[in-house]
Amino acid sequence: MIASPARLDQAAVDRLGEERLDWRFKSVPDTLFGLTAAEAGRRRPDLSDFVGPVVALDGPAMEHNLATMAAWTADRGLLLAPHGKTTMAPALFARQLDHGAWAITAATAGQLRVYRAFGVSRVVLANEFLDPAGLRWLAAELDSDPGFEFTCWVDSVRGVELMTEAWTGVRPVDVLVEVGVAGGRTGVRDLDTARAVAAAITASPALRLVGVGGYEAPASGDASPAGLDAVAAYLDRVRTTVRALSFETEQVIVTAGGSAFFDLVADALTAPWPIPVLPVLRCGTYLTHDDGFYREISPLGEHPRVSGPPLRSALRAWAQVVSRPEPGLALLAAGKRDLPYDLGLPVPRLLRTATGVTPLTGCTVTALNDQHAFLKADAGAGLAVEVGDWVGLGLSHPCTTFDKWSLLPVTADDGRTVTGFVRTFF
Amino acid sequence: MIASPARLDQAAVDRLGEERLDWRFKSVPDTLFGLTAAEAGRRRPDLSDFVGPVVALDGPAMEHNLATMAAWTADRGLLLAPHGKTTMAPALFARQLDHGAWAITAATAGQLRVYRAFGVSRVVLANEFLDPAGLRWLAAELDSDPGFEFTCWVDSVRGVELMTEAWTGVRPVDVLVEVGVAGGRTGVRDLDTARAVAAAITASPALRLVGVGGYEAPASGDASPAGLDAVAAYLDRVRTTVRALSFETEQVIVTAGGSAFFDLVADALTAPWPIPVLPVLRCGTYLTHDDGFYREISPLGEHPRVSGPPLRSALRAWAQVVSRPEPGLALLAAGKRDLPYDLGLPVPRLLRTATGVTPLTGCTVTALNDQHAFLKADAGAGLAVEVGDWVGLGLSHPCTTFDKWSLLPVTADDGRTVTGFVRTFF
Repeated sequence: MIASPARLDQAAVDRLGEERLDWRFKSVPDTLFGLTAAEAGRRRPDLSDFVGPVVALDGPAMEHNLATMAAWTADRGLLLAPHGKTTMAPALFARQLDHGAWAITAATAGQLRVYRAFGVSRVVLANEFLDPAGLRWLAAELDSDPGFEFTCWVDSVRGVELMTEAWTGVRPVDVLVEVGVAGGRTGVRDLDTARAVAAAITASPALRLVGVGGYEAPASGDASPAGLDAVAAYLDRVRTTVRALSFETEQVIVTAGGSAFFDLVADALTAPWPIPVLPVLRCGTYLTHDDGFYREISPLGEHPRVSGPPLRSALRAWAQVVSRPEPGLALLAAGKRDLPYDLGLPVPRLLRTATGVTPLTGCTVTALNDQHAFLKADAGAGLAVEVGDWVGLGLSHPCTTFDKWSLLPVTADDGRTVTGFVRTFF
Repeated sequence: MIASPARLDQAAVDRLGEERLDWRFKSVPDTLFGLTAAEAGRRRPDLSDFVGPVVALDGPAMEHNLATMAAWTADRGLLLAPHGKTTMAPALFARQLDHGAWAITAATAGQLRVYRAFGVSRVVLANEFLDPAGLRWLAAELDSDPGFEFTCWVDSVRGVELMTEAWTGVRPVDVLVEVGVAGGRTGVRDLDTARAVAAAITASPALRLVGVGGYEAPASGDASPAGLDAVAAYLDRVRTTVRALSFETEQVIVTAGGSAFFDLVADALTAPWPIPVLPVLRCGTYLTHDDGFYREISPLGEHPRVSGPPLRSALRAWAQVVSRPEPGLALLAAGKRDLPYDLGLPVPRLLRTATGVTPLTGCTVTALNDQHAFLKADAGAGLAVEVGDWVGLGLSHPCTTFDKWSLLPVTADDGRTVTGFVRTFF
């Protein structure tokens, strides 16, 4: 394990640009059908000519976020292994690696296979990995590529046993003991269990103990003082666990960090260690940020907790007003198939009419159906949208945005000139 | 407009079976990579060898539902235009047409383009359709294929104006006046508006008024007596609207009917009419039914309101237990990226261990994260799952199940022998 950035197969990523656009991509105008994605991007189509609804990525905002997070982690001596589950977009992984990312993080075997199809050379699978079919595939993948570095998590002796039984590889699997939060998700709840799991790993010929991993977000759903204290207390337990265990490599990976509390994670991972540690942050949503949950909670969001340029939301949906059936109510042609709804509903931001784009205030998206959004006037406000207008929406939760789109246009600074496309694989 | 079933391009559907399986399909075992979907189905792989999580379709249950709904609608003199948004699976559209479906229903231009790529000859777009890019495409499609029959909805004079301005086709667009529910979604709220919209349609050279459409589900979220009364009252308004308007065709389409209240819709659509009417039901979820929302509310569900064999749930997810970090808590490797969560959470049904499959009771999925499910013991119950076991889950809401999977295996009666694959396009 070294600190140099991971590599990927740039030629494979470039080949995505050779894919022909057609009816498989729900927002692409038919005037671009038959062109490759790369050719279509070079035509600089206008986003307003796309079929609604459409979710577009703001290219300059993404570049800003890439540079911001790369600088922020480098300044603090942290390695970044961005969680690729957010976008599942090899072209975006490539940009993250261009900016020095140390690895790409995965959650499932399915995601890992996508990464490997694009030659990602270092992957942190931030999850237990006990699937026999997945482990057989992984064993072959590790044995066929000596340059492939992989780690996953273990939180039980039973897990160690299952991995050991299933393992068919020559190279052992590098694993981290996962530390969890009481009442939270996966991960050991106490030091005795951590020690037992570590001992089982060390005894297993199939596994090699290379560090400790965790995820702090289950400790708190908000950035209140009590919430931040709970996150810090959890991170202390991660540190205690690292100090309590013996590892099978000289340099030890210690990783935590979603996109909500990476400030506290940075402090915990970079405080002095008694052994050589590679401190790895795994934020995924910083790349696009958002106009909802992460805007509220991110250390580089609307309520910054660290210095640095704030992240910018790079997600924008456009949906047409198709009905104004009652005073104060409009229906937009975009719903749960197109927009995220699990961490807050879309937020009206802009209005596009025949005469241009203006800010839109005084209304709220109150519900989504499968294919419709309900836009209601706020108390005391009129609803300044008409049938045929288009509403620009801010979104909350990048992960559940990307997974609704197999192809997303990327726009220039003006928010309307499409400069390229990003392909996802969910 | 005639009552014969719609057609589709079966050769195009069959070509889906020639697609090679690879890393793009998250649950497919790598042992099937390189085979076509058809070849892989002929190998009869075992579902337990798939990479987790996986959602499988129960083939015999789907065939039962197809036959049940075809018979039920035929018995009542109803035409069925199943909503294709549910599955977006051309191979399933083909089965629905094989069973006599009159049309396939769509909600968006993007869906319509998929249907047309597979030659679906008759489409009801059960929504307003004002998107200029979509309308330009539709105009060309209608003009290039005289056999293509299409209708969409209009609920405002402004909508008529926008369609008329945008229309570039030689053939006019057949439209229905949409009747809505006060406080509900799209659709006119009163008869005066219906008359005004109808007059505008009749005056437009681009549009032809061919009927009345609506969707009764916004009238009630449940099948309580009061809820059923509200649905019936809405359907009366649909009937009143039909009688109040003059149409531009001799035979008039009247359509309503999601999957929750098709009993009441059948009554309303088949009561005597003063003019020749094609009564069209648009249920989509009947094809797979479910173990949650539709099981509760369907007229052919757990609490049947009509006679006939009950629909069977054809959706089954399997997810592995990856952690048992605390008493009474297990974490499954499946989350919001894989399973629906908008109309109820997944329901534990089965437990698969090394020794076989048994019923699983006494526990509940209490939350989903992006890639994890929380399985908790019910009060007073132990949690009979261990790390490494697999949990079979019933699902709620077919629409938001399908859209998380680009390829779903279909199983035989035993629930484990995979007999084929269904490709979706979202």
